[in-house]
Amino acid sequence: MKALEEKILKEGTVLPGDVLKVGSFLNQRVDTVFLKKMAEETKRLFEGIEVTKVLTVEASGIAFATAVAMELGVPMVFAKKHPSANVSGEQYFSPVYSFTHKTTYDIAVSKEYIQPTDKILITDDFLANGNALKGLIDIVKQAGAKVAGCCAEIEKGFQGGGDALRAAGYKVESLAIVEKMENGSIVFRG
Amino acid sequence: MKALEEKILKEGTVLPGDVLKVGSFLNQRVDTVFLKKMAEETKRLFEGIEVTKVLTVEASGIAFATAVAMELGVPMVFAKKHPSANVSGEQYFSPVYSFTHKTTYDIAVSKEYIQPTDKILITDDFLANGNALKGLIDIVKQAGAKVAGCCAEIEKGFQGGGDALRAAGYKVESLAIVEKMENGSIVFRG
Repeated sequence: MKALEEKILKEGTVLPGDVLKVGSFLNQRVDTVFLKKMAEETKRLFEGIEVTKVLTVEASGIAFATAVAMELGVPMVFAKKHPSANVSGEQYFSPVYSFTHKTTYDIAVSKEYIQPTDKILITDDFLANGNALKGLIDIVKQAGAKVAGCCAEIEKGFQGGGDALRAAGYKVESLAIVEKMENGSIVFRG
Repeated sequence: MKALEEKILKEGTVLPGDVLKVGSFLNQRVDTVFLKKMAEETKRLFEGIEVTKVLTVEASGIAFATAVAMELGVPMVFAKKHPSANVSGEQYFSPVYSFTHKTTYDIAVSKEYIQPTDKILITDDFLANGNALKGLIDIVKQAGAKVAGCCAEIEKGFQGGGDALRAAGYKVESLAIVEKMENGSIVFRG
């Protein structure tokens, strides 16, 4: 998505440790007019593929997942990172290792929110090593549901997570794929 | 909002400790078709009032805030509960006591995401004792910005937080106000 690449170049910042900071429009402060355009593009990318639910993980994935689900007219479900007193009943769990925070945490979804008949589009703000998406795919499989595909707003292509999922047979679309970040400059894939 | 009251009666569950569980349509699993209607109603309730940004707190407030901000065509900002390695620069902090989790946590917003010229609509999924909203109001004030108003999807009227904020002069709208919960049944205000 050309407009997203331009926005990343204009408003994003590369921090030490390959961290791409896009909080000013993509996560902590969300440009909702642009968010709607990204949701429309996601709908276009998955045209013809049945999607009954959009699944993401809290917290920074929720805005994009909400916009995509609104565009598709289906429910949005998010996995929690911290089991909460408000979530009763049985849950699906999957462990996820975070390179950003150098720790493993569980993601959890109440069993009642995913049915075996569901065709799930998994979305997230970032796709890097793919650990969060793998955890979400694991939860969809535990529920006996089908993965319709995966879509990230920004993929860090050089970290390989997206390509590994593609090689495993999943339809993985990213609205922008960063091929490399060198000396603070950003190069997009092809 | 009559449709929300009906949905709460139909799909909500009252758990011990005055917990109203509406995860099936309002937070963990979000009915996005209905979410759009709630966002439209929120826009109507704040018609004629200038809003330049919508502010909420992660995680369950994000879906509603995103939908309201999309409806108003303004950015959405969310406060973080856990300071993250990805948030650089200075932040506004405010301590919030959670009755649900019986603990005090800091909420934080990067200073760059709120300007003194902003007119902020503060939204959340729930308004009970009002501690989260008070923390968000505190952050708006620290930024020198103006509170345009507050809007919750569901207010627990009997916990007094909304009325205290109204008495303090804030425009507080809630799409549904639960006046009491007794023996598993729900009574709405008005």
